[in-house]
Amino acid sequence: MSLRIAVDGEALRADIKRTASFGGIETDIGRGRTALSADAANAAARDYLVERLEAADLDVRVDAIGNIAGRWTPPDTDPDIAPIASGSHLDSVPRGGIFDGPLGVYAALEAVRAIKRSGAAVARPIEVVCFTGEEGTRFADGVLGSTVAAGKRGIDETLALSDDDVTLREALEGAGFQGTGRLDASRWDAWIELHIEQCSRLEDAGVPLGLVTDIAGTTRCHVSIEGETDHAGTTGMTERRDALAAASELVLAVERTAVETATTGGGTTVGTVGSLTATPNAVNVIPGSVSLRLDCRSVEPAEIRTQLATIEHTLSTLEMERDVSTSVDCPYDISPTSLSGRCLEVMAEAARDSDIETRSVHSGAGHDTMQIASATDAALLFVASEGGYSHSPRERADWDDCTIATGVLAESLVRLANDTDHTRTSC
Amino acid sequence: MSLRIAVDGEALRADIKRTASFGGIETDIGRGRTALSADAANAAARDYLVERLEAADLDVRVDAIGNIAGRWTPPDTDPDIAPIASGSHLDSVPRGGIFDGPLGVYAALEAVRAIKRSGAAVARPIEVVCFTGEEGTRFADGVLGSTVAAGKRGIDETLALSDDDVTLREALEGAGFQGTGRLDASRWDAWIELHIEQCSRLEDAGVPLGLVTDIAGTTRCHVSIEGETDHAGTTGMTERRDALAAASELVLAVERTAVETATTGGGTTVGTVGSLTATPNAVNVIPGSVSLRLDCRSVEPAEIRTQLATIEHTLSTLEMERDVSTSVDCPYDISPTSLSGRCLEVMAEAARDSDIETRSVHSGAGHDTMQIASATDAALLFVASEGGYSHSPRERADWDDCTIATGVLAESLVRLANDTDHTRTSC
Repeated sequence: MSLRIAVDGEALRADIKRTASFGGIETDIGRGRTALSADAANAAARDYLVERLEAADLDVRVDAIGNIAGRWTPPDTDPDIAPIASGSHLDSVPRGGIFDGPLGVYAALEAVRAIKRSGAAVARPIEVVCFTGEEGTRFADGVLGSTVAAGKRGIDETLALSDDDVTLREALEGAGFQGTGRLDASRWDAWIELHIEQCSRLEDAGVPLGLVTDIAGTTRCHVSIEGETDHAGTTGMTERRDALAAASELVLAVERTAVETATTGGGTTVGTVGSLTATPNAVNVIPGSVSLRLDCRSVEPAEIRTQLATIEHTLSTLEMERDVSTSVDCPYDISPTSLSGRCLEVMAEAARDSDIETRSVHSGAGHDTMQIASATDAALLFVASEGGYSHSPRERADWDDCTIATGVLAESLVRLANDTDHTRTSC
Repeated sequence: MSLRIAVDGEALRADIKRTASFGGIETDIGRGRTALSADAANAAARDYLVERLEAADLDVRVDAIGNIAGRWTPPDTDPDIAPIASGSHLDSVPRGGIFDGPLGVYAALEAVRAIKRSGAAVARPIEVVCFTGEEGTRFADGVLGSTVAAGKRGIDETLALSDDDVTLREALEGAGFQGTGRLDASRWDAWIELHIEQCSRLEDAGVPLGLVTDIAGTTRCHVSIEGETDHAGTTGMTERRDALAAASELVLAVERTAVETATTGGGTTVGTVGSLTATPNAVNVIPGSVSLRLDCRSVEPAEIRTQLATIEHTLSTLEMERDVSTSVDCPYDISPTSLSGRCLEVMAEAARDSDIETRSVHSGAGHDTMQIASATDAALLFVASEGGYSHSPRERADWDDCTIATGVLAESLVRLANDTDHTRTSC
């Protein structure tokens, strides 16, 4: 194995570790972080990114919904030609890992620095990108910035999203990242996102890199169950309309259906109730109201439909049997995505030419890339995860694998940038 | 029906309505309030009580854990003779009703004012009492102030209780109600608490007042279930240790056992999971940790033991079948309580002499009275609830019934105060 473009693994590591310090948490199982969209930790991580982009002499801009782009226009390059873009996100889930997101952002930046150092001829600008709100834990159910960059959601509508306390506009203004205009992914010639794998297939196979062919579809639902708040000591067992007991039946039904569908179907289906909030949530009060957030995924659309039918059926049964009222809304509904053959080919060749082993995999997790794929040629490159842990402080990648992946990313960006048959105009 | 001591129902109503304005909430189903132990709303309600006690010329004192007492020493009364006490609490559950607690405090105050106005001879001092932390939603699982007044828990230990943010001492200091000494219930000759009934037995029987013979025992448990936090999209259904799915099985097991025990046993058993908190509680993360608070009640100790055995058995099964770890702790464990025959007799006679119908009932809800019963002769008097709603903004009592109950309370306090055969010394 020998990288064709020399990557500074220590610089990459330093940037990721510094980002981990914003909202950082130390636990028995590892180092994690909590940096929700536009909160104080995310704002500090963004400030640091802008500082690092400027230190690398990139032209930085921030769009209306807080997407950040740092552009390098190589000498003697037509500034109007469509750029190649690469990046990921800096927000995290609560108590998430330190690689999920920051690895892709800082690998893109280190790739640009490495390309500049190498003196390689590059015929297109390269943009380093950080999307707003990739994780679905504040303001929306995820991939927010890339959805707007792909033209699938309007700016005003997005800025009006609320976390029940402030709007995204207010949060971005508070963080100092409510800019102007819209980062437009359709003007990019191609896009590559580097991300840590979120299961252990690559580690199990002893392969450092994964070339992602498809991303599973994801449907997320908000469910509300309304029963009746009453005294836990004086309300007889047959007189109750306990919203938490009803919600517990739904949690188990979602789990049961996903297990059955995964067993009898293609094996990629998962179903999760990740969030449950009971009201008033006091020991001596029967819960009158519960809201749940569900996540159903599969590479097979029919298997997602099976899960949604189970949710509907379970809620109907609960209404009849427990005299509760229910509602369900699925505002996040993304179909399975096939990624760009051109980009996959370039990445495979770049790895092969550096004697780096890869494996074709699908992604069970959603990524900004699935939105960008509707706007331009898009690719997703995985680095092996140690143990497959994700959205947890246990998440870990081998630093040497990160360096290797950044080298393959840099080489792929150069090859895509020098493929000037395309005629897209720059933004 | 004619009350022997004339009660000012309007003054009682005004005090309860004013108290409802502290932490008050208006909902579609009625007026409620949220005033947790020593929070800002509870502090405002306490300030108002002190103002009203002083306006009635009572000597006010606040003990180390914030219990409030206002004493009336009638003219020509031996100040060292043991007083009669009456009261309740001013804290509420989240989104609770406006009668639960304040009715008993302000009925006691109005009873004293009415007795003074009546010119009745009274041979013992009468104390109007407000206990700290009756509801189990902050610092402890309930009846906190009466537990200390009954000598069952130390002051320092109680002040050190925390809500995971501040200690009770800090919260009381902030509210201005961290006084000195200890209100000692063993120095009272007798105690009566007036409270709204928390189910609809009295209303169903068309009777305004209930004489409580027994209070059900209550055991409350904190359960913790630890699974593993991981990515909802990339962790296969067979690789999960989902703490929320495990917790859902427990919720349903608690419900199922309570239904079965109530059906086959004495009919007084109830079991509730009132509180469930999942961590990290994000849509795209498998919940790694869940904490639950359970409440088991019955007038039959054996039926409570059956419920606890089910909880233990269910947790063992979950550990084996779902590879989670669990713990259970039951810090609140109060046996069924029989109330004072002497007080019951006095209240029954007082009601009968005013032509007011009563019914003997048991209480499924816990009250400060069950703690005070271990220290002195204690009684609990219920006012009918309209619809039986409790711990809810739907909670409602007929104002005329409240006035009638306050009259019977006043008459009972006078009769107990003039029963000077007892030799307890005043505090």
